[in-house]
Amino acid sequence: MTAHTRVRLSPDERRAQLLDLGVTLLATRSLDEISIDVLAEEAGISRGLLYHYFGNKHAFHEAVVRRAADDLIAQTAPPTEGDPLERLQASMEAYVDYVVTNYAGYRSLVKAAAGGHEGLRAIYDEVQGVLVERIFAEDEGTLTVPDTPAVRLVLRGWSTMVEELVLVWCEDASGVTREELHRMVTDSMPALVAITLGAGA
Amino acid sequence: MTAHTRVRLSPDERRAQLLDLGVTLLATRSLDEISIDVLAEEAGISRGLLYHYFGNKHAFHEAVVRRAADDLIAQTAPPTEGDPLERLQASMEAYVDYVVTNYAGYRSLVKAAAGGHEGLRAIYDEVQGVLVERIFAEDEGTLTVPDTPAVRLVLRGWSTMVEELVLVWCEDASGVTREELHRMVTDSMPALVAITLGAGA
Repeated sequence: MTAHTRVRLSPDERRAQLLDLGVTLLATRSLDEISIDVLAEEAGISRGLLYHYFGNKHAFHEAVVRRAADDLIAQTAPPTEGDPLERLQASMEAYVDYVVTNYAGYRSLVKAAAGGHEGLRAIYDEVQGVLVERIFAEDEGTLTVPDTPAVRLVLRGWSTMVEELVLVWCEDASGVTREELHRMVTDSMPALVAITLGAGA
Repeated sequence: MTAHTRVRLSPDERRAQLLDLGVTLLATRSLDEISIDVLAEEAGISRGLLYHYFGNKHAFHEAVVRRAADDLIAQTAPPTEGDPLERLQASMEAYVDYVVTNYAGYRSLVKAAAGGHEGLRAIYDEVQGVLVERIFAEDEGTLTVPDTPAVRLVLRGWSTMVEELVLVWCEDASGVTREELHRMVTDSMPALVAITLGAGA
C-alpha cells in the first residue's frame, strides 16, 4: 500500500482503495476480525481518517460486504458461449470456487445475515436473488426451468443447499474432491426442478 | 392450568409441566417472545418460582428447546411398516408437518443457532444429526444410501434445503400446495444421493 498512498488520490478513489483492502482481508478473516483498527494498521493510516471515510464499524462492514458482493456477482457471471445449462453450470462452479477462496469472510456474512443483522441480510438476500434470477434469464427455453412459484421455491432451497455444501466442504472435505462437489452443485439444480415439475424420481 | 396446579406435584413434575407450557407457547411465538415473565403469566405462578426452576432466561430457553427437540424426534419417528423408502418418506412428511405446526418457535431456533447461540446450536445440531442418522439406519440395503463422506455431505446439504423450503413455504406458500412441498422434500433425497454416487442427471 505504501507506494500507492504517496499518489494523490481523490477521496472516492481513496475510499475505494480502502474497500479493496477490506475485501482482501475478508477472504481470510471473519467480519468480527476486521475492525477499523485492523484496517488502519494494514493500510498504514490513522483510525480517525477511517472513521472519516466510513462513519463507524457497522457502516464499514456493510461497505466492505457490498463491495465483496459486487465481486462475487462479477466473478460468477455466466460465460457468453455454450448452451444454457453449460453456461449456468460454469457460473455455479465459479460460485463454489469464490466461496472456497473467500471462505472466512463468506462464512461470517452468512452467520451475520442469519443472525439478524439487517443491513448485511439485505446485501446477502440481494446476492441470492441475483443468482436465482440468472437461472431464469439464462434459460432460453432450452432448459426446462419455467418461472413458477414452485420452481422459485425449490431454487431458493437449492441455493441454500449449495451454500451449506460448500461451507461444510471447506471446513472438512473428508476426502470429497472439488470435482465431486461441483457435480453435486451443478447436477442437482436440473434434477430438483424436474422433481418439482413432477417429472423426477 | 388452574385445575392442574391444585394437584400437589413433585418439583420434577411441576418443572415438566412448565416446560410443556413453554413448548406450547413456542409453537406460535419466537424464543424472544417467551420470557420468564410471559411464562409466569401464562402459568399463573410467580416469576420467583420460575427462576427457582430454571435459573435464568437463557437456561429456560435451552430447557424448552430441548423438550421441543425431543417432541420433534418422537413425532417424526419412521413407521415400523412399509419398505425403507416409504418409512423414510413418511418421516420426512412428519418433519414438514411439525415445522408447519410449530413455525414461529422453529424459525427462531434456526435463527438463534445460525447466529451463534452455542447452547441452542448444540441442540439444533443434535436434531439434524438424529434425522440424518435415521436415513442410514432405515436403509437396510434396499435404498442405495451407502454411508460415505460424499453421501453424508449431500444429506447435510439436503437437510438444510428441506428446512429452508418449509420455512419459506410457511412465510409465503405462493400457491404451492403442501402435497407439492412434500414431494420436493421426499423425492429430492434419493435423487441427490444418486447424483452424488454418479448415477444421476
